[in-house]
Amino acid sequence: MDPVETRVRVRYAETDQMGVVYHANYLVWMEVGRVEYWRASGLRYRDMELEDGVLLVVAEVNCRYLSPAVYDEEVIVRTSIAEATSRMIRFEYELIGVEDGRRMATGYTKHVFCGRDRKPARLPQKYHLALGIGAFK
Amino acid sequence: MDPVETRVRVRYAETDQMGVVYHANYLVWMEVGRVEYWRASGLRYRDMELEDGVLLVVAEVNCRYLSPAVYDEEVIVRTSIAEATSRMIRFEYELIGVEDGRRMATGYTKHVFCGRDRKPARLPQKYHLALGIGAFK
Amino acid sequence: MDPVETRVRVRYAETDQMGVVYHANYLVWMEVGRVEYWRASGLRYRDMELEDGVLLVVAEVNCRYLSPAVYDEEVIVRTSIAEATSRMIRFEYELIGVEDGRRMATGYTKHVFCGRDRKPARLPQKYHLALGIGAFK
Amino acid sequence: MDPVETRVRVRYAETDQMGVVYHANYLVWMEVGRVEYWRASGLRYRDMELEDGVLLVVAEVNCRYLSPAVYDEEVIVRTSIAEATSRMIRFEYELIGVEDGRRMATGYTKHVFCGRDRKPARLPQKYHLALGIGAFK
Repeated sequence: MDPVETRVRVRYAETDQMGVVYHANYLVWMEVGRVEYWRASGLRYRDMELEDGVLLVVAEVNCRYLSPAVYDEEVIVRTSIAEATSRMIRFEYELIGVEDGRRMATGYTKHVFCGRDRKPARLPQKYHLALGIGAFK
Repeated sequence: MDPVETRVRVRYAETDQMGVVYHANYLVWMEVGRVEYWRASGLRYRDMELEDGVLLVVAEVNCRYLSPAVYDEEVIVRTSIAEATSRMIRFEYELIGVEDGRRMATGYTKHVFCGRDRKPARLPQKYHLALGIGAFK
Repeated sequence: MDPVETRVRVRYAETDQMGVVYHANYLVWMEVGRVEYWRASGLRYRDMELEDGVLLVVAEVNCRYLSPAVYDEEVIVRTSIAEATSRMIRFEYELIGVEDGRRMATGYTKHVFCGRDRKPARLPQKYHLALGIGAFK
Repeated sequence: MDPVETRVRVRYAETDQMGVVYHANYLVWMEVGRVEYWRASGLRYRDMELEDGVLLVVAEVNCRYLSPAVYDEEVIVRTSIAEATSRMIRFEYELIGVEDGRRMATGYTKHVFCGRDRKPARLPQKYHLALGIGAFK
């Protein structure tokens, strides 16, 4: 599937006294991007969690900061799946300023599929097609 | 019971681009104060929630901001119970700078005791004494 | 001016272990509503702060919680000005679920206009009309 | 210098609906660890920023999640410097549960020294000794 683009607007709460967005908040935007990727794939993460007890537990995050986002700026979160199996999934992200197209950050997150008990579990078959599982070799 | 004092140190993450602590974070410090009030009363909020399924659902918050807290400053959260019944509890807070004793903020939070289903429920009798319930008329 | 409506979608980061939105995050949404009220009035809060050195310092917040917002739910933030002078402004908010129209919370925030030195200052005349100052008696 | 250990206690605000700490909050704890490393080195990050206009701009973060922290648990943040020059510094972190000694996460953050204009700048000589600059070859 093509990358999915979502927009967030920088909140005052997300800035710090350096006058730019506090670095941990980029991870929250990646989460927003991930959920919208899900939705664009015809899935709703909330339902997966509630109905099938599938949790997407974060195993690793990485973010490189290139140019800081500032208050009230709109940011595109471009999300794609870099790797997916029935056990894990890795998302990649690019954060881009809407007004000037500059790259603000790049990063990835790795997740392990778990059951309600937070123990690793295989992703149910019915989700494989939507996430392109089988297509990654 | 006397007010209970806890200390927090301002984190960079808690500042905003005005160069002071973002106002919503004072509510988080009130929560820290509340939990330590609990502990000082011989209770552990975590256990109440896990073992007895008693949830303390926030019904109202109020905060007046007097003098902003700044990065790396230590803040005393002085917490007391203003009112308590088997149905609800109201905490009051004073936030005070450690170095200069200035009052940063005052506020209160009202909570309703609920069960695991988040429906209002009476607080089990065994907690009444520790919280002074019966002493507030 | 009529109330201004903005939408936010609940982020995973905004939930807590009670399974609903952590209460302090409602204040962040009120901030989002306030900024969009500004924009709907033809003003940009960022520019006021950067160009005219007008800061909107929070003096008081109040929030009553009626029905909790849950993950991935869309929330309308309905913002209006309850009172405004050249010295201060008070916003009122209603938070409403998009899907079922239920009221999640109501609240207000009071702000004092300050200069770059964070000392109280009169709001420049050019902003009065847009904010209806003079219309509140 | 030896690793510096700091403690944080998990706040309710830091949990999410999975019942554990939301992953982005580990980065905030790393920041707490970093500031205390600074203090243990006889430096105060706040003063460096205010007096010498030295900003520590985050260039990259990485975190691997091993075992989730839960509400009210105490966490040790063990911080060390892995690399430092007059241009940049890289901190490494281990997050460890106080009660059971389990490793919750490991990670690193890379920072570039910048001036007040947020442009890269050399760290003033007077800070080199405290940070062991010259000792990393």
